[in-house]
Amino acid sequence: MTDSSSDLPELWTHEPHIHLEFKPGDSVAAIDTNATPGFRGSKSDAPALQEERNARYAELQEMLYASSRAGDHRRILLVLQGMDTAGKGGIVKHVVGSANPQGIQYASFGKPTEEELAHDFLWRIEKKLPAAGHIGVFDRSHYEDVLIVRVHDLVPPDVWGGRYELINDFEKRLVDDGTTIVKVAMFVSLDEQKKRLSERLDRPDKYWKYNPADIDERLLWPKYQEAYQAMLERTSTDYAPWHVIPCDRKWYSRLAILELLIEALKGLDLAWPPADFDVEAEKVRLAQA
Amino acid sequence: MTDSSSDLPELWTHEPHIHLEFKPGDSVAAIDTNATPGFRGSKSDAPALQEERNARYAELQEMLYASSRAGDHRRILLVLQGMDTAGKGGIVKHVVGSANPQGIQYASFGKPTEEELAHDFLWRIEKKLPAAGHIGVFDRSHYEDVLIVRVHDLVPPDVWGGRYELINDFEKRLVDDGTTIVKVAMFVSLDEQKKRLSERLDRPDKYWKYNPADIDERLLWPKYQEAYQAMLERTSTDYAPWHVIPCDRKWYSRLAILELLIEALKGLDLAWPPADFDVEAEKVRLAQA
Repeated sequence: MTDSSSDLPELWTHEPHIHLEFKPGDSVAAIDTNATPGFRGSKSDAPALQEERNARYAELQEMLYASSRAGDHRRILLVLQGMDTAGKGGIVKHVVGSANPQGIQYASFGKPTEEELAHDFLWRIEKKLPAAGHIGVFDRSHYEDVLIVRVHDLVPPDVWGGRYELINDFEKRLVDDGTTIVKVAMFVSLDEQKKRLSERLDRPDKYWKYNPADIDERLLWPKYQEAYQAMLERTSTDYAPWHVIPCDRKWYSRLAILELLIEALKGLDLAWPPADFDVEAEKVRLAQA
Repeated sequence: MTDSSSDLPELWTHEPHIHLEFKPGDSVAAIDTNATPGFRGSKSDAPALQEERNARYAELQEMLYASSRAGDHRRILLVLQGMDTAGKGGIVKHVVGSANPQGIQYASFGKPTEEELAHDFLWRIEKKLPAAGHIGVFDRSHYEDVLIVRVHDLVPPDVWGGRYELINDFEKRLVDDGTTIVKVAMFVSLDEQKKRLSERLDRPDKYWKYNPADIDERLLWPKYQEAYQAMLERTSTDYAPWHVIPCDRKWYSRLAILELLIEALKGLDLAWPPADFDVEAEKVRLAQA
């Protein structure tokens, strides 16, 4: 009783990874952040579809968790990268969060602490890797070490330059050990970013999400664009490809990443683990207990 | 702009803690596990109310998280204890899980590992305490060390006997440091437990939740009852009282614990943190960026 049949909703023309996977030659500068690749429907279709697919995702997540209790070692790691306001928080809340928190391991990676800086850049990452049966979500990740670190010259070029290969080797090890890595790079246009930052300044319940440094980063967009381009080119591997998500329409980016997670889970051919006890004998014991 | 006004739904006669808090003289043997103390409505009222209160809880959780970003040190710790099938998992999934996983720290405490046993019984607990701004949920907890440990004589009586005071001291320290502890003891009748175990044996998608040892524990119910009684009597303090939750009706136990969490959050008088930057100046900077 495995669960790998395609159940892709008709509103998708193909499985979203076909549209969204980064391909050699793709250019960050040319991303249409307002597009909805592969999706036939419109915004009005989104709420019902999201609810339906959230439930599907939660069911598969429970199967993954159950399998680990029967010795299955596999796990999922969702890596979220993107400029400020791209919607990483919304993905955590509205997509990842629709599953049981028992099986979710959330980690965010901000400015490294002194202790973290006293170690190799992957040290803090290793500590937050999901355990068997879990879905880990990285809100920013080891890729900060070739993005903000590169843009701000926080380490010399030969140091960050060496990290692409280190990251590939690291991810290879995780994949070989049973981790399915889903990497999504989330892009919004500068106009849409301005709108979203502006909303944070207009609403007192959003002030806490606003950081004046966001504007400084925004002004560095050309340098970030180069850093994202290099990241996508150098770390999109066959075992852990990047997906490029247009994020001007939040409803689309949520549906797309949700579908990528479902694809990853379905790729595991999950099944409810068989009983490791004699079911009929236990029924008798229970009746007497 | 704080948020502490009472918004208790009319379906509750009083705030649920008034009905559910353990009081000296209360007897575990006398708990009516099928009751719905304080609730005027019925099962048919539950879905809509649960949805509405989940949203309220999620909003308060976000405020707590936001406050911590502005330096507020406070946090919530929900402690779930209860016999097998009492519904701890459902509380994690349907109540706690309705908030953003970013602000939730889930920890379960099963059989201690060798490393854990090589330390004081609170060592593994300390490591899982929620950080500022978070809601921690303990699926089983340090109370296992005066429940299963006591029932099975896993340590000598003078060792487990000393733990009640150690736990009280430990919790006092947490409370003094800004943790609101919500302790719930979940009780089902033996009949209802039999039904729920039986369902796990009838449904292949539930086999993974079934453990033959559950029947052995079931047969020890009289000894567990004593252990629960002692736990409630000796560790229900004014700073961290126990709540006794009748759990034969899942819809009730979920609504009740959800309301206890909301009460705890409201007790913090949360507010959206004020801007720590000049809002108007940032608007100008953004317009030009």
